[in-house]
Amino acid sequence: MSSITRISISLASDVLEKFDALSKEQGFPTRSEAITHLIHSSLVQQQWADGKVVAGAITLIYDHHKSQILQKIVDVQHDFGNLVICSQHAHLDRHNCMENIIVRGEMRQIQKLHQGLSAVKGMKHAVLSMTTTGKDL
Amino acid sequence: MSSITRISISLASDVLEKFDALSKEQGFPTRSEAITHLIHSSLVQQQWADGKVVAGAITLIYDHHKSQILQKIVDVQHDFGNLVICSQHAHLDRHNCMENIIVRGEMRQIQKLHQGLSAVKGMKHAVLSMTTTGKDL
Amino acid sequence: MSSITRISISLASDVLEKFDALSKEQGFPTRSEAITHLIHSSLVQQQWADGKVVAGAITLIYDHHKSQILQKIVDVQHDFGNLVICSQHAHLDRHNCMENIIVRGEMRQIQKLHQGLSAVKGMKHAVLSMTTTGKDL
Amino acid sequence: MSSITRISISLASDVLEKFDALSKEQGFPTRSEAITHLIHSSLVQQQWADGKVVAGAITLIYDHHKSQILQKIVDVQHDFGNLVICSQHAHLDRHNCMENIIVRGEMRQIQKLHQGLSAVKGMKHAVLSMTTTGKDL
Repeated sequence: MSSITRISISLASDVLEKFDALSKEQGFPTRSEAITHLIHSSLVQQQWADGKVVAGAITLIYDHHKSQILQKIVDVQHDFGNLVICSQHAHLDRHNCMENIIVRGEMRQIQKLHQGLSAVKGMKHAVLSMTTTGKDL
Repeated sequence: MSSITRISISLASDVLEKFDALSKEQGFPTRSEAITHLIHSSLVQQQWADGKVVAGAITLIYDHHKSQILQKIVDVQHDFGNLVICSQHAHLDRHNCMENIIVRGEMRQIQKLHQGLSAVKGMKHAVLSMTTTGKDL
Repeated sequence: MSSITRISISLASDVLEKFDALSKEQGFPTRSEAITHLIHSSLVQQQWADGKVVAGAITLIYDHHKSQILQKIVDVQHDFGNLVICSQHAHLDRHNCMENIIVRGEMRQIQKLHQGLSAVKGMKHAVLSMTTTGKDL
Repeated sequence: MSSITRISISLASDVLEKFDALSKEQGFPTRSEAITHLIHSSLVQQQWADGKVVAGAITLIYDHHKSQILQKIVDVQHDFGNLVICSQHAHLDRHNCMENIIVRGEMRQIQKLHQGLSAVKGMKHAVLSMTTTGKDL
């Protein structure tokens, strides 16, 4: 992390009042933290729009009794082997599993991996969280 | 609009540098305008999450040759008559029309109107833009 | 519009039951209409991801008393003149206007126009609805 | 999982052709799988809109050198102790960590936990993946 810069900005007074109320409700310790949060989200969105190297998490929901599904999930990951950092598995109930795969790499590749996992026979749901490697924030 | 307040905030220097570059690329005249834009978006999102009185636009794409479709679109609007302010119609080609319906009212009601229009037989696409009456910004 | 094809698909019985209940609640007249709706949304999303020629609506909220804002909104539109088909204006209250601009063209250009309008000094909110020219649906 | 039902639906032939092409490109083994995928997404979206018991994953990006950040992240989780199933931690580089928290519970509670983690001082990014416990799919 880097040094801190102090800047001044001008805002409409009633907008500022509403933003302060919202930030307090959301639990931000200071106005600077609340604005930093908005700026971070905006920069992460831009990283994905620009197709840069990003990080993400792919969340899968499936019934592990489905024939061959574990094998197929691993196979697809190996097709994109350099993207996957690690994964975590939770037993939601007797049938349903959640698997969380942490990935880092070129945006298009991550989207293809997500698409490949979505299309595995028997997959119930597959969501991609778009976040950042943190390097630029 | 109200008076203007000048505030100071502290940001990590490298984040500020990246945000300034992005804001310039996006065409914001000043840093204050760029941050105001983020705050406005955040407040509008909150208005929708809280189910407040909001404004929106519903965009429909359909083939006007589809039997009875114009009649049905008008009928659904009349079921929610107090929501609709006005609407606009554009001929995209010989078959396809876009219709834009400007609405204002309680969030849940607007979502129901959007759902009702989405379900009209022959509707190709129906999108809801979530925005604000502007009163609180 | 084209001819109709009848296809058979296999679904888990309990998923089908839940989908039928949801479709009924959403007002779809038939199961075919409800599934067509999902397919249309998926195809439109793909058109935008592929950067094809698409249609959209840009919804602006602003206070028309803001100095020069009407002029600037028109100026930005003229920079992308071939995208704009028509626009519609509603008076939400004494201060606030909603403007709805119907656009058609290459996806990246539409996003740039939306960005340009978002950055106009005094703009309260600017949303882009992503839809289709209807030709491919 | 339950028994399988075979149903027939009617689709515009040209839409079907485009959908088949897209499904093939996305890697779905059959038309039934591709349509099931759309139905699942629609049902999960509805579960979240209805505020039901759902599952999710919260992905955090932060610099673990930030004073007290690990302690605060754990504290917030304990405030919502019954939601968290487990969590996973990956070292993205010398400074940046990704943490993935698997949660299950009432939708509003999950959103509050996400909000609380977003507001922790020093948090770079916090995303919520909305998925399902799998029971209803």
